[in-house]
Amino acid sequence: MPDTLNDQFLPFTTAEYEVRVRNLQGVMASADLDAAVFTSEDNYRYITGFYSPTWINLTRPRYCVVPRVGEPVIIIPANNDVIAAQTSWIRDVRTWVAPNPTDDGVTMVVDAIRACLGKSKRIGMELGPESRLTMPIGDFLRVREMLDAEIVDGFGLLHGLRIIKSLTEIERMRRIAQITSRSFEALAGRLKVGDSEKDASAKLRLELIARGADTTPYVSGGSGRNGYTSINTALLDRVLTPGDILTIDTGSTVDSYFCDFNRSWAIGTPSDEACRAYELVWRSTEAGLAAARPGAQTADVWRAMAKVLAKENRLSKGEGQRLGQGRFGHGCGLRMCEPPSLNERDGTVLKQGMVITLEPGTAFTARDADGETGMRVMVHEENVVITDDGCELLTTRAPRELPVVG
Amino acid sequence: MPDTLNDQFLPFTTAEYEVRVRNLQGVMASADLDAAVFTSEDNYRYITGFYSPTWINLTRPRYCVVPRVGEPVIIIPANNDVIAAQTSWIRDVRTWVAPNPTDDGVTMVVDAIRACLGKSKRIGMELGPESRLTMPIGDFLRVREMLDAEIVDGFGLLHGLRIIKSLTEIERMRRIAQITSRSFEALAGRLKVGDSEKDASAKLRLELIARGADTTPYVSGGSGRNGYTSINTALLDRVLTPGDILTIDTGSTVDSYFCDFNRSWAIGTPSDEACRAYELVWRSTEAGLAAARPGAQTADVWRAMAKVLAKENRLSKGEGQRLGQGRFGHGCGLRMCEPPSLNERDGTVLKQGMVITLEPGTAFTARDADGETGMRVMVHEENVVITDDGCELLTTRAPRELPVVG
Repeated sequence: MPDTLNDQFLPFTTAEYEVRVRNLQGVMASADLDAAVFTSEDNYRYITGFYSPTWINLTRPRYCVVPRVGEPVIIIPANNDVIAAQTSWIRDVRTWVAPNPTDDGVTMVVDAIRACLGKSKRIGMELGPESRLTMPIGDFLRVREMLDAEIVDGFGLLHGLRIIKSLTEIERMRRIAQITSRSFEALAGRLKVGDSEKDASAKLRLELIARGADTTPYVSGGSGRNGYTSINTALLDRVLTPGDILTIDTGSTVDSYFCDFNRSWAIGTPSDEACRAYELVWRSTEAGLAAARPGAQTADVWRAMAKVLAKENRLSKGEGQRLGQGRFGHGCGLRMCEPPSLNERDGTVLKQGMVITLEPGTAFTARDADGETGMRVMVHEENVVITDDGCELLTTRAPRELPVVG
Repeated sequence: MPDTLNDQFLPFTTAEYEVRVRNLQGVMASADLDAAVFTSEDNYRYITGFYSPTWINLTRPRYCVVPRVGEPVIIIPANNDVIAAQTSWIRDVRTWVAPNPTDDGVTMVVDAIRACLGKSKRIGMELGPESRLTMPIGDFLRVREMLDAEIVDGFGLLHGLRIIKSLTEIERMRRIAQITSRSFEALAGRLKVGDSEKDASAKLRLELIARGADTTPYVSGGSGRNGYTSINTALLDRVLTPGDILTIDTGSTVDSYFCDFNRSWAIGTPSDEACRAYELVWRSTEAGLAAARPGAQTADVWRAMAKVLAKENRLSKGEGQRLGQGRFGHGCGLRMCEPPSLNERDGTVLKQGMVITLEPGTAFTARDADGETGMRVMVHEENVVITDDGCELLTTRAPRELPVVG
């Protein structure tokens, strides 16, 4: 098939994937695992390269079995073999005709795992916090019963490697952050009074696609008189009128790597309260940018951002946590939201190559159109990579003053 | 919050959701379940209305507990409360500040389930074929251990209801199928020699968004000299030249309801082989349209389509299965691919209100640019709803002859 040569569509060299597998096998040995099994789109993409929109189809699961020593095996539905040939470097590809409700790959997976079992009889699968096992759980319980082995969490193990991005990964993340920064700027010039939230969302997606984003799976936000009430609601039919604040947050991708940040605008002249809230979260982000450096803990960065906010708002701790979404940022990479969390409890030590979002949020009161007073939130987000002596923005820094459009 | 009134963004009336819950409780009683717990986006949307792009964020799970009698409860991260207020009809909303790695909702879920337990001590969760339990499996195993109850599959139970679409659901599916039909037609006028597959994909997504699709999560396909080799690969950098065949398949949504179908084009004058393969799958689809009626089994519809293909191709059974992706169509709704499968083994009896795809595929040999002979596939797909005496197209039927563009 000369039109679809293997390796043609691998975003990274085979050597880079091989390093990933060797590093994984190193931590597997330390954790005394005979094998690790991965089923979720992002882990699969990280190890095997396998790339296809077909993950949205939940009929057919996929399995990757990594032995402690030797080459990984992928076990996929027969109709996925062309995808594997085009986008994966893995040589040991086994297939079954799916869907097959009586045995959708289970026997093949058990066989592949058994071939890895040594003395420890421990295998890792995606079980831990923030993981998703991307197979029917009835089949997982069956695999567990068929194996004479202990199944422990393997997601944390792999993510401990994924959390440090290579230069080539950072290059993708910078590219999508820059595409998105320019798309937000272009959107500002195209927003009009009378647009619905949905219109604004569509305009942003058009800009993103035209500028080279591969996918735009996450576009959320909110709008309202003098402020919005949530940043992760869908953009719906509400029409923008003068006096509104609009925010849009997007996770878009290049080569499956995400950015994750928002921008906010005033539709016509904003109230003083909205301007103050915007500048407050902007300054809080500045404090985060200064604090995010190798050796600092995620909690330190959280504290630096929280300190700026605490001086000026009078929220209860519960309100603060709710509005701060339990954290002021998180990891980002092959998932829009990856560990760690930037909050009071998280003690992850930042290292060169980590990509995190800085996402402080605050709340304030403002008047609705009918004169009633209600609660509003203001969230600001930037994406950075930790460098040797601090951090570097992947996004183009938002302006200090709330931009006015329309 | 006058800008964000409850019910404002519910795509259906509260009455329709209440009927869904009553029907579910009916089958729960027949299956002797005390409670059913749902965690996946589509099941959550079906029962609660809850709508947000935030499902892409895997940090925070969500739970819906439906008792055998009484009102459902949703247990969600605290920062999701505005989403619930805007998009869900459920009154009993419980929240926790997430992420909380030591207890991300587990205790609250266990408490809510315990309050439902009666004599049977059986609860349903998403375990069975084609299901995805959308929570960390470590937490699932913890819930199972904490409960004095048997956990059985609840996905099949709920899907048995979801499989029959209401008039209001069908209206959404017709809308997205029509938006997509018109977008494919517009794309044909915009495809050019020299476009990459990615350009073609971006042009289609621009048309879809401009015409009112809410999301376009699935755009796949392939291209190649005299034919393509797979329909579910990502559209990448390959450049279209005269003599190529291009196919694009999309699952796009309105109000979270999917269409799922493809269209194919010749770039310049096509070979006779490509034209014959196209017309063959078109005629196979005609046979499917005639066979899809209430009372028929999915296997009957498969057989009608397979019979047309068998007369003209010389594939081995294994090749046929692989190329037919193990089936010639499937259910469609809040997921792009839902049960049932249209294949030899599936005995689902079609009923009025079911929405299925008819998706026959064939293979043929063709010459590459360098004169070598290689295998090609041709897949054709339409979406139909089963009526009282047959079926009705939701898509605009594709032309019988392979359209030529560029």
